[in-house]
Amino acid sequence: MNKLIQILTVTTVAFFVLIGAANAADYVYKQEFMPRETVEIDLAKTAMFVTDPQNDFLSEGSPAWGLVGPTVTKHKVVEKEKTLKTLAKKIGIPVFYSTHMYTPQDFANWKSLNGIDKIMFDLKMFAQGTWGHEIHPALLPDSNTIVMNPHKGLSNFWTGDAAIQLRQYGIETIILYGMSANMCIESHARDAIENGFDLIIVADATAAAGDAAYEAALTNFEFLAHEVVTADQIIKRLEEAKRLEEAKGMEKPKTMEKPKS
Amino acid sequence: MNKLIQILTVTTVAFFVLIGAANAADYVYKQEFMPRETVEIDLAKTAMFVTDPQNDFLSEGSPAWGLVGPTVTKHKVVEKEKTLKTLAKKIGIPVFYSTHMYTPQDFANWKSLNGIDKIMFDLKMFAQGTWGHEIHPALLPDSNTIVMNPHKGLSNFWTGDAAIQLRQYGIETIILYGMSANMCIESHARDAIENGFDLIIVADATAAAGDAAYEAALTNFEFLAHEVVTADQIIKRLEEAKRLEEAKGMEKPKTMEKPKS
Amino acid sequence: MNKLIQILTVTTVAFFVLIGAANAADYVYKQEFMPRETVEIDLAKTAMFVTDPQNDFLSEGSPAWGLVGPTVTKHKVVEKEKTLKTLAKKIGIPVFYSTHMYTPQDFANWKSLNGIDKIMFDLKMFAQGTWGHEIHPALLPDSNTIVMNPHKGLSNFWTGDAAIQLRQYGIETIILYGMSANMCIESHARDAIENGFDLIIVADATAAAGDAAYEAALTNFEFLAHEVVTADQIIKRLEEAKRLEEAKGMEKPKTMEKPKS
Amino acid sequence: MNKLIQILTVTTVAFFVLIGAANAADYVYKQEFMPRETVEIDLAKTAMFVTDPQNDFLSEGSPAWGLVGPTVTKHKVVEKEKTLKTLAKKIGIPVFYSTHMYTPQDFANWKSLNGIDKIMFDLKMFAQGTWGHEIHPALLPDSNTIVMNPHKGLSNFWTGDAAIQLRQYGIETIILYGMSANMCIESHARDAIENGFDLIIVADATAAAGDAAYEAALTNFEFLAHEVVTADQIIKRLEEAKRLEEAKGMEKPKTMEKPKS
Repeated sequence: MNKLIQILTVTTVAFFVLIGAANAADYVYKQEFMPRETVEIDLAKTAMFVTDPQNDFLSEGSPAWGLVGPTVTKHKVVEKEKTLKTLAKKIGIPVFYSTHMYTPQDFANWKSLNGIDKIMFDLKMFAQGTWGHEIHPALLPDSNTIVMNPHKGLSNFWTGDAAIQLRQYGIETIILYGMSANMCIESHARDAIENGFDLIIVADATAAAGDAAYEAALTNFEFLAHEVVTADQIIKRLEEAKRLEEAKGMEKPKTMEKPKS
Repeated sequence: MNKLIQILTVTTVAFFVLIGAANAADYVYKQEFMPRETVEIDLAKTAMFVTDPQNDFLSEGSPAWGLVGPTVTKHKVVEKEKTLKTLAKKIGIPVFYSTHMYTPQDFANWKSLNGIDKIMFDLKMFAQGTWGHEIHPALLPDSNTIVMNPHKGLSNFWTGDAAIQLRQYGIETIILYGMSANMCIESHARDAIENGFDLIIVADATAAAGDAAYEAALTNFEFLAHEVVTADQIIKRLEEAKRLEEAKGMEKPKTMEKPKS
Repeated sequence: MNKLIQILTVTTVAFFVLIGAANAADYVYKQEFMPRETVEIDLAKTAMFVTDPQNDFLSEGSPAWGLVGPTVTKHKVVEKEKTLKTLAKKIGIPVFYSTHMYTPQDFANWKSLNGIDKIMFDLKMFAQGTWGHEIHPALLPDSNTIVMNPHKGLSNFWTGDAAIQLRQYGIETIILYGMSANMCIESHARDAIENGFDLIIVADATAAAGDAAYEAALTNFEFLAHEVVTADQIIKRLEEAKRLEEAKGMEKPKTMEKPKS
Repeated sequence: MNKLIQILTVTTVAFFVLIGAANAADYVYKQEFMPRETVEIDLAKTAMFVTDPQNDFLSEGSPAWGLVGPTVTKHKVVEKEKTLKTLAKKIGIPVFYSTHMYTPQDFANWKSLNGIDKIMFDLKMFAQGTWGHEIHPALLPDSNTIVMNPHKGLSNFWTGDAAIQLRQYGIETIILYGMSANMCIESHARDAIENGFDLIIVADATAAAGDAAYEAALTNFEFLAHEVVTADQIIKRLEEAKRLEEAKGMEKPKTMEKPKS
């Protein structure tokens, strides 16, 4: 028995040494049958895409904090979103913010509310002009952030300008994370696929209303994404892509280009 | 000859007396082969839908005024938009505003610009936070106006929340007008049809960049709309619909309903 | 202890007697915090909506049978789809079929494949003109079935004509079921909501590639639907709605109406 | 006077010699204020996009021939479509067909018909399984043609799979032509723009129901397209692009690539 463990350990170590990229911080797939892909990252066509980086999901004191707060804190979502945003600026890829917003008229007049709508409307979440609707103070937009039209429902591809914005910046690959895992992240994931984007989801830079909701999202991410990663994993990949780009002498900060005329 | 004219005149007068609704102020179709329909108006399912009611299209002094100003003035677009808005409130149907908006980042970074985009971007039209982007002072939103997400490109159905907003209010028939005739009005018209709305276009409450553009829009409206009308014509129809509704004792201001819960 | 169980039993029985509708066959929500709604069914505005009723998901011998067969069989998906289809015809509401289809050119040339795409493409699922693409023999369309454009990806709302078809029949409420739970059902569910439809999902008339996938779908259905039901439950509700309609003397088979002209 | 004409002639000839590309066969813009662009063509990202290449629009004997036949014949639409299709295959760029289709159930049950719908439904145009719905015999699909899901209404971007198909082939620039000018061509043009494609419209490889409809389309094309061209003009440009590609030793027939795996 001890012998067997020893053999396995040696083999495993050798395996990880060989494949290089894979390590303890990599995302581990749960579906045995699901094929894995390592998306090749071309920084000139890649963007981060963040859903609902707002106080109502990310800050203690919001009416939804009781539901989402425990996993937001446990997964360190704010810290990871901040780290990724800083990295994006450093390596010159844009960050697209898809915020969530309802107006007093929406709250007063919308007639067809599903389960999650009823909760959001009951809590008056993402109300235009309120603190809850504001972007979390650690994640404020800068010159590298594109704040798109706010979305209603669950996806900016249906009620905002996500598709045209991404296309106008020449983006083909999206690195997706934010709140909440099985709702807005997953709806944006599904619509990104229907629009032909390559999709990388950061599985630990998100959280949800309870463990069941988060687990459901993880399961579905494996079906929907081209690749599921951890924050650590994508950070290494992006830094490596930047090094390669610089080695080729092709450094060109992309987002702030002038339009062709 | 005189006899013939006399007969025709008598017949025509009799005809107009018989059909009642049709008169000198009605829209006259240009395409002979096009079928006419008189859309039955159910006020509980009808809304006005206004595109780009903003200074950059409607106010003297805007950079686009040289292009659109002459027809805006000639057609009295602002006056008609104001009259229709006032009527909507009086008879209890909502008014949906689809505004046009670009950000400094859009101007600086968008790479795929078609003809009309190049003009708008060159003139920095509908720039977020500027006077040109503001709604015309005679047309400011009130409690009866739903200001939707702003659109990019030409249609809110692609880059905003038009479809979900209209559905959440139970709207099935749209009375469409605003600026400009062959661009945003026509794109919204086409998308409204693809989404299954009944479409009435007010042909003289709009204007365009030159006569050719306006004439092109009129031609296409006849193909695209369920009915093309003048402002005078739709005002009479809506007032008549209101009278019928009140006669049935069914007066119920629709927009300010409480949501079902 | 026995005493406690006795009290609980009596209380529970009394409870179910009191609420009437709820019984052993009703769907039991897993998320404690999720509000429940009983959607009021107006047969004239209600349709069944079935995804992927095809051999590749529902018939033994398909290449995907190893993945989905166990839950398809366990949940008796084919039997339930057949029962619901027969009921729909009897009570005069239409059944919309959203089939899945790829062409040989899709298989040969598509370049951006996510996890589930890779599996489907590897198995050449839903290939145009093959047995796997055909509708299951127990579920063949009849005069009451609208076979929409086939979808690619996961949702007919993005790659087919679902929205316009439903609107052209005046549908406002969808009763959704079919294959597979966390993929096409869930994507159609999300897009139905973004388009303003009221959504009832039949949680036991669907199946998935493994238990994790099915459980993920159930969790998300509770967030996304206006109401989650079992097949037994919705059958009773529809029969009751039909009885009420007939009692009001308003029987009118809806799908086979002539268009207004 | 003669002197002036002489000078002008000399100047004009010199001008055309200088600019090279422009000649008598080039499209002449009607809107003075509209900026011109010459879209740079990268064959690897370019496709032809053809709407409604079917008997009901293109063959004598169809019920719509009385309306569209005169301009179809005058513009030699079938001949030009055939020439462009042959060229596409020769230079290795794909041709996407967006066909129009209605079913007997659509004709019998659709309730919201606009002007053009009423004509199409009255004539039972594009009826599934009929000669009128079939692709014109001179334009039959070959291995280089992608026949997408058929569209209802006016645009495949709303009721078919146009967006995902184009993206899956890596297409960024569309060369658009077909039938009819102010209806399906123009709706596809508007939706292509909203989805971020670069758009070239072939203004003389299309026709319409009468001169007013065709003229309306031409006017709007100038606003909507990145570039409006004639068939002669785009043929030269594509042949030149092919020569340049071959000169760089980069010949690679694009459509028949194997998918990455």
